[in-house]
Amino acid sequence: MRGRMLGLALALTAGTTAGADELREAAGYLFAPLPSTIPAVRDNRITPAKIELGKALFFDPRLSASGVFSCSSCHNLATGGDDNLETSIGHGWQKGPRNTPTVLNAVLNEAQFWDGRAEDLKAQVKVPMTPGAQMSNTPENVVNTLNSMPRYVEWFGVAFPDDAEPVSFNNMAKALEAFEATLITPAPFDAWLNGDDEALSDEAKAGLTLFIERGCASCHRGVNVGGHGYYPFGLVENPGTELLPADDKGRFAVTSTEIDEYFFRAAPLRNVAVTAPYFHSGKVWDLKVAVEVMAGAQLGEELTGDEADRIVAFLQSLTGAMPPVIIPVLPSETSSTPRPATVRPAE
Amino acid sequence: MRGRMLGLALALTAGTTAGADELREAAGYLFAPLPSTIPAVRDNRITPAKIELGKALFFDPRLSASGVFSCSSCHNLATGGDDNLETSIGHGWQKGPRNTPTVLNAVLNEAQFWDGRAEDLKAQVKVPMTPGAQMSNTPENVVNTLNSMPRYVEWFGVAFPDDAEPVSFNNMAKALEAFEATLITPAPFDAWLNGDDEALSDEAKAGLTLFIERGCASCHRGVNVGGHGYYPFGLVENPGTELLPADDKGRFAVTSTEIDEYFFRAAPLRNVAVTAPYFHSGKVWDLKVAVEVMAGAQLGEELTGDEADRIVAFLQSLTGAMPPVIIPVLPSETSSTPRPATVRPAE
Repeated sequence: MRGRMLGLALALTAGTTAGADELREAAGYLFAPLPSTIPAVRDNRITPAKIELGKALFFDPRLSASGVFSCSSCHNLATGGDDNLETSIGHGWQKGPRNTPTVLNAVLNEAQFWDGRAEDLKAQVKVPMTPGAQMSNTPENVVNTLNSMPRYVEWFGVAFPDDAEPVSFNNMAKALEAFEATLITPAPFDAWLNGDDEALSDEAKAGLTLFIERGCASCHRGVNVGGHGYYPFGLVENPGTELLPADDKGRFAVTSTEIDEYFFRAAPLRNVAVTAPYFHSGKVWDLKVAVEVMAGAQLGEELTGDEADRIVAFLQSLTGAMPPVIIPVLPSETSSTPRPATVRPAE
Repeated sequence: MRGRMLGLALALTAGTTAGADELREAAGYLFAPLPSTIPAVRDNRITPAKIELGKALFFDPRLSASGVFSCSSCHNLATGGDDNLETSIGHGWQKGPRNTPTVLNAVLNEAQFWDGRAEDLKAQVKVPMTPGAQMSNTPENVVNTLNSMPRYVEWFGVAFPDDAEPVSFNNMAKALEAFEATLITPAPFDAWLNGDDEALSDEAKAGLTLFIERGCASCHRGVNVGGHGYYPFGLVENPGTELLPADDKGRFAVTSTEIDEYFFRAAPLRNVAVTAPYFHSGKVWDLKVAVEVMAGAQLGEELTGDEADRIVAFLQSLTGAMPPVIIPVLPSETSSTPRPATVRPAE
């Protein structure tokens, strides 16, 4: 199978655009269209009640210690599911360590974070809530907050009917995962993979051809065009300390294995055109520049301006349609709701 | 007319609940149900194109210098159109000077802010964007930001077809006002005013009777049950420096007239039950306590616990239904979009 795929990929050379059928066949081995139903996740059956609860939680700033930040603060559904910042701003105006990945289609990544330290979204969502992080809260305070609002208690009961204690930090995480699993954004590339020849422009098809033949798809493949494996940033050439600061050793922080130094997850590229800035350091704002950096650092390739433009045109075809999300009406505080703690931590 | 109203109000004494017709007639002189159409505003004809543009702007964090705050950060439509904080947290984690009023039904207030310093919403929206304030931006940088995104330029052109320069700080403000004018939340009290006897509980009706006969409605009246006139906080008794800090002289800052010292706008009470904490200082979290403070400070009345409960029941009938708001998909940045300035200002 893999031999066949490589053969097809190698056949896509010389010309700027391969034959439509050839290109789609090669792409079919490397990528996959988004599923037409909400993806299943491990150990968390997704139900409408969990989705509705998770949606409320996603927008609830009272999950942060300060009452200022909700999940949607950094994963803004109006701007591609991220925050358009180099690195996020959190509790007390702290700058986060790495660029915020988009929540869109994130359920389909093999693991979460730039270093894959959370195995799934229900593990991921807890991390920004912890002390010192963006939301700087504690599980205990989160649970107290939720328990203080009768409507939340009711909603947790409906969403987790078999649990003796429905309101828990774990169930909060599961509900958030359920909502986030609905954030799937079918794009022109999916329409093309599914058979619509007109869904991609000729330039985008030429870009896809380059994307395959130059080797980008070696790492950025699968349903999310990335998001599944870990690779050294600077495989061929170090991109420089501005983009690859020496003190962030990537996946090494997770595995403590020397071979993982400066390994990062191949970024999932769906919606990449609307989620600048780029790289874990968030230092590059222009997608064409990001493509050129990657070509040099990972593949030792120098792209012509036209080639980079074509790849960008392909990447733009990964910008998907947002599911309509109506802002939820959240339960209001009661006298027992923990008060916002907005005091800035000492530096 | 006024004599007749007072006569009716005075007739509502002694018993806990007046006759349904009597009470509705008295209420009809003091209050008004929300309009069934989007209210007209001065010098800004509201059109669907302006509303759509204004909705995008309302959710756009790139209107702030840091890229962190949008209008919706402090005027969160998921939590009653305010931020549930004593006073807002803004650029560089600055604490704002006064509690954030709700944006819901704000179009129907006679003026904006606790001291009425903005005559309408198109004047109001500019203030939090200015240097040093929540969003800490400049009109020039806002306009450059908007002009850097072709879709915004297109949307402004459609919303302001007769303007030579559609993209402007003034037009941004007008579009925001148009969107905010749609944030009207009809409540059980409106249904009752419109003739539905069952829309208010007996307790709420008893609370309304008290609200009128004890004098609350002298200041909190009109369509927004407040939001139209300025009154001294502490008319009868000073509520103490915790609630009324000496250094915030209220409307004096606007008029520089001694008589306006410690005058504040009578808070519009629609959705008050979901917009704690209370007062311009944001120091009281419990609505019943707020009612008791007001009765003492403004009217020299001591309410029994039951009386305060009844008034709270009436105030809860002012919690309205949110119009469904689908999160917009915002234009994405281009290479010429000003970059977020997240550096914290020196203290």
